[in-house]
Amino acid sequence: MSGRFTVTYHVRAAAADIEARAQGIAVEQSVEMPLAAIDDETVLSDIVGSVEGIDDLGDGVFAVRIGLATATVGQDAGQFLNMVFGNTSLHDDVVLKDIAVPEALVELLGGPRHGIAELRRRLKLHGRALTGSALKPQGLPADSLGLLAEHLARGGLDFIKDDHGLADQHYSRFAERVSACAAGVARGVRSTGHPTRYVPSLTGNLDQMRAQAALARDEGLDCVMLAPMVCGFPTMQALVREFPGMAFFAHPSLGGAARIAPELLIGGLFRLMGADAVIFPSFGGRFGYSRDTCRHLAGNARRTDDGMKGALPVPAGGMTLERTKEILDFYGEDTMLLIGGNLLMARDRITEETERFTRAVAEHNLA
Amino acid sequence: MSGRFTVTYHVRAAAADIEARAQGIAVEQSVEMPLAAIDDETVLSDIVGSVEGIDDLGDGVFAVRIGLATATVGQDAGQFLNMVFGNTSLHDDVVLKDIAVPEALVELLGGPRHGIAELRRRLKLHGRALTGSALKPQGLPADSLGLLAEHLARGGLDFIKDDHGLADQHYSRFAERVSACAAGVARGVRSTGHPTRYVPSLTGNLDQMRAQAALARDEGLDCVMLAPMVCGFPTMQALVREFPGMAFFAHPSLGGAARIAPELLIGGLFRLMGADAVIFPSFGGRFGYSRDTCRHLAGNARRTDDGMKGALPVPAGGMTLERTKEILDFYGEDTMLLIGGNLLMARDRITEETERFTRAVAEHNLA
Repeated sequence: MSGRFTVTYHVRAAAADIEARAQGIAVEQSVEMPLAAIDDETVLSDIVGSVEGIDDLGDGVFAVRIGLATATVGQDAGQFLNMVFGNTSLHDDVVLKDIAVPEALVELLGGPRHGIAELRRRLKLHGRALTGSALKPQGLPADSLGLLAEHLARGGLDFIKDDHGLADQHYSRFAERVSACAAGVARGVRSTGHPTRYVPSLTGNLDQMRAQAALARDEGLDCVMLAPMVCGFPTMQALVREFPGMAFFAHPSLGGAARIAPELLIGGLFRLMGADAVIFPSFGGRFGYSRDTCRHLAGNARRTDDGMKGALPVPAGGMTLERTKEILDFYGEDTMLLIGGNLLMARDRITEETERFTRAVAEHNLA
Repeated sequence: MSGRFTVTYHVRAAAADIEARAQGIAVEQSVEMPLAAIDDETVLSDIVGSVEGIDDLGDGVFAVRIGLATATVGQDAGQFLNMVFGNTSLHDDVVLKDIAVPEALVELLGGPRHGIAELRRRLKLHGRALTGSALKPQGLPADSLGLLAEHLARGGLDFIKDDHGLADQHYSRFAERVSACAAGVARGVRSTGHPTRYVPSLTGNLDQMRAQAALARDEGLDCVMLAPMVCGFPTMQALVREFPGMAFFAHPSLGGAARIAPELLIGGLFRLMGADAVIFPSFGGRFGYSRDTCRHLAGNARRTDDGMKGALPVPAGGMTLERTKEILDFYGEDTMLLIGGNLLMARDRITEETERFTRAVAEHNLA
């Protein structure tokens, strides 16, 4: 397998040092040893990373473009991460900014199996943005979460997900919770006639997540959520392959910690790994991503020009009903607006408040 | 399951804002919703995070101590990471600094199954530090790596590991490589009489890593390496449990990216997850960890006062033979000094250079 692909790093360095830094990254992300100690000509020509270019971005930051050998990735999503950023992540002045994913890796990793188009088809949802909320707080017993799921579903939401803190804790074991919430949503669906989806959160190791996904499927669910940076990219890939009918929502938990640009990590890599929808903290909420980052992230998620399906961006993290127009004006229609805690502020009036939410989104495109 | 454990975050903030930031983290790392929307008294008292203290460290940085409910971790290593740092990792001004791991989680996660003591016992190695090197560069065919392994083993090394870039690529498939390198090391062992260990690198998803570990075991090996931030903590935990005879080396790949203090991540969490040895970039090499960080990391790794075994610190990342005395003076005897690329600079004289290395380490304690 020949060929290289370009990875872009942003490096904070003095101008006098940047060439050496760039060469250092090229070596670190390939052979990781002094080149003078390598005899093998093929390794030197085909495996060692190459510096493709250095651009001065100003303010002491440089964009460094490195050509890495596709062969070093082998057939593994984890190895892909290892080769693009494994050791270089240990430098606190380098950010992994972009990756031009080669065709061979698109074929290997596959991207979303369903994407925005299929999510819309399943819910017969066209001409407007999508709506979502979350079951909170953890600590509530399964039947209470099931009732909450029903209340939210009666408000006509498109998607109701587990809070990402819901795992398999004693207070709401996965099996009981999924059963109660699937039933609660089903009651809501029968009432509204709208095909609301419940999205449980998968946690644990691959075997445990597999068993949970199977349980979800047996309950008639066709969406699940996971956190790629917590379970590991190889785990996600395995599940996406083994459950081809499932749509996968990616949660960014632990992702901010990785000095990987959010628009690349969440908008690019989570999609590459098979996320059909990518949840991220939007500007204006509890987190600090800029508008530019959010725009770029959402744009990356929705791409369809690289051989893969477009994934649904899901701005979240402190969104409010009052900001619906502002958020949808910014992101556009191929978006799911996720309002969790702020919807729950309505307490007893949760269904009415949810109806206000779904109405605001439905009417947005008519404005 | 009652009880709380304390997590320490370093937050860069204005003094006027820090109390609100601290409370924000307490909520984010537990219920992640407005408290005013929670009715359930038990959730409010037992689940919501609590601010235990705030210390001004100067320079605009505060140490924030949060009490998290142990129950929210459930029985899963990934959920543990999710609850201590999942969403808060999305803030670029917060570092996860320390975790006072409660007994219940020590029991759940277990720490090293073997630790320094058992590694010494296996190699009958007392009274001196340990030595290690790495098979590089990737791209070499398996039989060449096998020969290199033999040359290194003939120099009397204690441990010979795969370069962490060696996965299952076409040029040196795992099965062939492990077979060739195990045989090469065995030839070296027969020559020297010293029980050198070969440490292959496990990659892929849990099933693949399981199969690789079994293959390694069938080749008579008793050590393997993995990268916890790449494969995911739940994967590591599953392997540590399923291969109780194996000693596990943890590689820090992708770990620097996580805004988690290295002394906690590598010295603390990797050990908690079951690493018997923890590889890290030492000061003075290719990476930028300070002496203080390295000292603290090594100290955390070696702890035996918390119900778990001590793990072996493995300073690496550009170490040289010339610095052996300096490095061992700094770290002490319960250390494995890992010299990879710099040893390979000796090329044809690799065995002689390796002998110089092992002699220098053996003689260090006599100095």
